Amino acid sequence: MIELKNVKNYLAPLPVILVTTRLQENNIKKDNIIAISWAGICDHAPHLININIAKGRYSGKIIKLTREFGICIPSSKYLKEIDLCGTTHGNKVNKFELTKFTPFEAKSINVPLIKECPINMECTLEDVISFESHDMLIGKIVKTYVDENYIDEKGNPDFAKLEILAYLNDEYWTLGKKIEDLFFTKKK
Amino acid sequence: MIELKNVKNYLAPLPVILVTTRLQENNIKKDNIIAISWAGICDHAPHLININIAKGRYSGKIIKLTREFGICIPSSKYLKEIDLCGTTHGNKVNKFELTKFTPFEAKSINVPLIKECPINMECTLEDVISFESHDMLIGKIVKTYVDENYIDEKGNPDFAKLEILAYLNDEYWTLGKKIEDLFFTKKK
Repeated sequence: MIELKNVKNYLAPLPVILVTTRLQENNIKKDNIIAISWAGICDHAPHLININIAKGRYSGKIIKLTREFGICIPSSKYLKEIDLCGTTHGNKVNKFELTKFTPFEAKSINVPLIKECPINMECTLEDVISFESHDMLIGKIVKTYVDENYIDEKGNPDFAKLEILAYLNDEYWTLGKKIEDLFFTKKK
Repeated sequence: MIELKNVKNYLAPLPVILVTTRLQENNIKKDNIIAISWAGICDHAPHLININIAKGRYSGKIIKLTREFGICIPSSKYLKEIDLCGTTHGNKVNKFELTKFTPFEAKSINVPLIKECPINMECTLEDVISFESHDMLIGKIVKTYVDENYIDEKGNPDFAKLEILAYLNDEYWTLGKKIEDLFFTKKK
């Protein structure tokens, strides 16, 4: 076991998600999409999720203002579009035009979601926790959507078909296969 | 796109990690290991990580008391041991004895790390954020270790060899393969 000279954070894998926002003034809607991987689950009752965004970024400012956002989980088919959402700036580029993603309207919040993403979740902002370079935005999930083509017999998303991405140390990875259920040692 | 009747949190994939703790009274060391997947990256300067533990759990209490913990990233070879760490209670069972994992001493903190895990990180507790059922513990990474058998030519862990796990909706999954680097659309 080698101790590295510089501290590194190798926590992995992380999710690859798209976060959608809308800034509306009168009838003019400015929609945006960012790609992030610093995201996690905080609680299950209610369902809380955290997304971490670098301070000063366009999307973080809008979420703090509107207090709502979408979480859209994309498949690897759209890797180019995902990476474009992470490398361009929403105050300069219309990312729905850039990626050709198809927006659909959320029901509880005034934010577009993404039809090409097999999982979409509507979130309201619950809290903001400030770190040195990033803000952690805590969202409460208020609605969950799954593409009807990817629902299994139990009503869950069929992850074997979704082809979602994993993020490891600045690399995009595919997932492999399911090997066991949680708590399998208790059941055997 | 179907709206589910009940709100669900399908954020995925999440990491599968082992968190180590030590409660020491005089010369008696009580070491423990838990398996969790609600964990993420908060910041990079300093390197902050969050782990979420259900309130009242043994490991959470110890971390709040000692203000230090280890993060050990295991490979899928030890799936049975990982699941055992998640299904047994540290106040009843000695999990190092149960799993036969080999402890090694951390340098900056008084916590055991796990030799079988290709990545180990020492953390000091920076903050605790309380949610309804879970506490989010924010740790600062103070040392990083990588198994010398899994370091690539750039000095990074060779994730293609590590065989770490992903967690999707209460299932353990393998990872597939790297498909692109972050920002690949900018480089082409």
